[in-house]
Amino acid sequence: MNLHRKPIPVGEAIQRVMNVPSSTKIEKIPLEQADERILAQEVAATHAIPPFDKSPYDGFAIKAEDTAHATKEDPMTFRVTEEIGAGHRASKPLQSGEAVRIMTGAEIPEGATCVAMFEICHTHEQDGQSYMTIKREMQPDQNIIKKASETKEGTPLVSSGTAVNPGVKALLATFGYSEVEVYKKPVVGVFATGTELLDIDQPLEPGKIRNSNAYMVLSQVNRSGAEAKYFGKLADDFDTCYKAITEALQKVDVLITTGGVSVGDYDLMPLIYEKLGAEVLFNKIGMRPGSVTTVAHANGQLLFGLSGNPSACYVGFELYTYPYLQKMLDRKNPYHPVIDAALGTDFGKPNPFTRFIRGYISYEEGKVVVYPAGMDKSAVVTSLAKTNVLIVLKGGTRGYQKGEGVQAILLEDETGSEEFLLEG
Amino acid sequence: MNLHRKPIPVGEAIQRVMNVPSSTKIEKIPLEQADERILAQEVAATHAIPPFDKSPYDGFAIKAEDTAHATKEDPMTFRVTEEIGAGHRASKPLQSGEAVRIMTGAEIPEGATCVAMFEICHTHEQDGQSYMTIKREMQPDQNIIKKASETKEGTPLVSSGTAVNPGVKALLATFGYSEVEVYKKPVVGVFATGTELLDIDQPLEPGKIRNSNAYMVLSQVNRSGAEAKYFGKLADDFDTCYKAITEALQKVDVLITTGGVSVGDYDLMPLIYEKLGAEVLFNKIGMRPGSVTTVAHANGQLLFGLSGNPSACYVGFELYTYPYLQKMLDRKNPYHPVIDAALGTDFGKPNPFTRFIRGYISYEEGKVVVYPAGMDKSAVVTSLAKTNVLIVLKGGTRGYQKGEGVQAILLEDETGSEEFLLEG
Repeated sequence: MNLHRKPIPVGEAIQRVMNVPSSTKIEKIPLEQADERILAQEVAATHAIPPFDKSPYDGFAIKAEDTAHATKEDPMTFRVTEEIGAGHRASKPLQSGEAVRIMTGAEIPEGATCVAMFEICHTHEQDGQSYMTIKREMQPDQNIIKKASETKEGTPLVSSGTAVNPGVKALLATFGYSEVEVYKKPVVGVFATGTELLDIDQPLEPGKIRNSNAYMVLSQVNRSGAEAKYFGKLADDFDTCYKAITEALQKVDVLITTGGVSVGDYDLMPLIYEKLGAEVLFNKIGMRPGSVTTVAHANGQLLFGLSGNPSACYVGFELYTYPYLQKMLDRKNPYHPVIDAALGTDFGKPNPFTRFIRGYISYEEGKVVVYPAGMDKSAVVTSLAKTNVLIVLKGGTRGYQKGEGVQAILLEDETGSEEFLLEG
Repeated sequence: MNLHRKPIPVGEAIQRVMNVPSSTKIEKIPLEQADERILAQEVAATHAIPPFDKSPYDGFAIKAEDTAHATKEDPMTFRVTEEIGAGHRASKPLQSGEAVRIMTGAEIPEGATCVAMFEICHTHEQDGQSYMTIKREMQPDQNIIKKASETKEGTPLVSSGTAVNPGVKALLATFGYSEVEVYKKPVVGVFATGTELLDIDQPLEPGKIRNSNAYMVLSQVNRSGAEAKYFGKLADDFDTCYKAITEALQKVDVLITTGGVSVGDYDLMPLIYEKLGAEVLFNKIGMRPGSVTTVAHANGQLLFGLSGNPSACYVGFELYTYPYLQKMLDRKNPYHPVIDAALGTDFGKPNPFTRFIRGYISYEEGKVVVYPAGMDKSAVVTSLAKTNVLIVLKGGTRGYQKGEGVQAILLEDETGSEEFLLEG
């Protein structure tokens, strides 16, 4: 086996993955089920907002010109003809000298040109008739929210490829999208490989560890908006692995394996890619951890060979699998955003290759500071719980000091980024 | 009805809500289903990590003292006795002069004190026996990951009240938590009130609008980690509303209504709270939008009376309902984090009361900048799609200029905050 793979830069590895064509499938689902799904249609205003002139307050709808010259000393009195709540309409056009008692959100009666708020009106009854008195002048259009003042009919509001959050959901409801077209979730199969792996419900045995990577990756897949399908763990036996992987490929859009991608005697994935006739996009990247992360392409499907090392596996998923899944969902911004931040602590180790440290973000007096989430050993699973960024330490650097500028990749931001602007 | 409610400050309103006792329920679920759930148990290391001395590389396990004086000119040769992959163990203790071919992750054989990487070893065969030659000295413990060097048995790793993310999931798997105790999701009922409301699949009618608030709030409830239960919309009729609400209260932990909390003739919620014998915690807050947001407490249940106005409804949920739901999940950090940021645009309007503007966050050269997501009219639903922060403009200010410091509430951060550090 070739022990001397040539590493390629992270940016190039990502491009090779993203250049692989993907296809999308669309399904129509009830709005109730659309939370966090990705729209496969543009959403436009099917009507104006508001759809009619409406009142922003509780008050009286009147003709503004009727109040000309109304003062404290010489108030103007109106005959209250009817009362309309939101959802009701005046029964007839309003005439000069008349007032309609109107509630917030109700449609302005025909003929009315302003709304006088309750607070400036005085009411009284006489002979079973209600009257309203006002002591000041009102202007035309005062306290009227004009039809279409927020949105005109036909205005495009949300583009295809957008995730449905509570605000988008409100828009969809407003415009009557009781069903909505969304992209089908890509189905992502997950295998863990390694004879050393125990099931999570098995007691620990000498020389063995429990399978944690698969469970971690299943969560990462779900967090990415795809559908995870767990196929179990595989011992390091070629025939078993080959058979299981070829069968699984029939059932999924994308397949992830953890482990077996290095150059050890039991690292079977390279042999499996070979027998599958898969094109290996890369099998060595200039990064730590995860330098042996491998991506192969067979019959239109991508196989992500993530490292068996937990942190390398985590980083490999977020850098390479995540954006491809977003591409499969036709998202305009498939990448995690890369931002500038200050490093919150010293990091003495030199970085011969670009290093990705699991970390967390902190906002300090308007500035963004990032801290490593724990020890930086690539095998450390305990540092991952707090992680919401990957801190990027450039390759070819001797170490970093607290306060130095670094880049950080935001893992939980939902808006995404159109490009992946990683330096160096 | 009392038109002159006395407003209380936002911070006091939040405290009144958070002072209401809550009870939690615990359920045990399979690890596979634990994504995003809140742990109801502490997670501790059930064994050391690593659980045994292990090799970080592929190489040869030997006794370091055997390499004393090994040089280019005078290399040391070892007899290779066996080969062990990860998950396997050496069959017998290693003796002086012997080497075990060992793979990454495998347990160091008894008697071995270091691992020489493949890259520095030369191998040859003679008479069917494998040999390995090394030209340099090795140190004891070199290339050995010592048992417990990452985590000692019994170390507390994740506390109760923590959300399960991919890293936490990996920890749970590692330590054999095939089932995990999580807090039951609080069940949150949602009603939309208002005669003006149409169902989302109904055509628009004069004077009416479609019910969008309920769908938005259902999404907000889901995003908060609770379980949303939609009870439909209610016309402004007291008996119907009262009956529906009392029945719903039997089926939920918390009830949200939208609309009907103002002081208009058709605002029925105050009367319903009265008939329920509920204690109204507040019904007027010094904030825009959402000043009429009302919270009432009846028989140990909270009733959140959110405004019928979409943006006020949105803000009211995030400020008052969200933290209470987190409290019901026993989260250590129940509040949305409040951070300092620079305002990305002028905001000319004076702010007699604290104003909460739906906005989004932008990271610009290490600094945090927040922008309003759209027009700031409290009824504007179209501005909510991009929203991931609420920008806080202090009450008693005349307006803000681009670049001025403001506070912002992060809506999609999952770590939360122990306190709600809102100024002014």
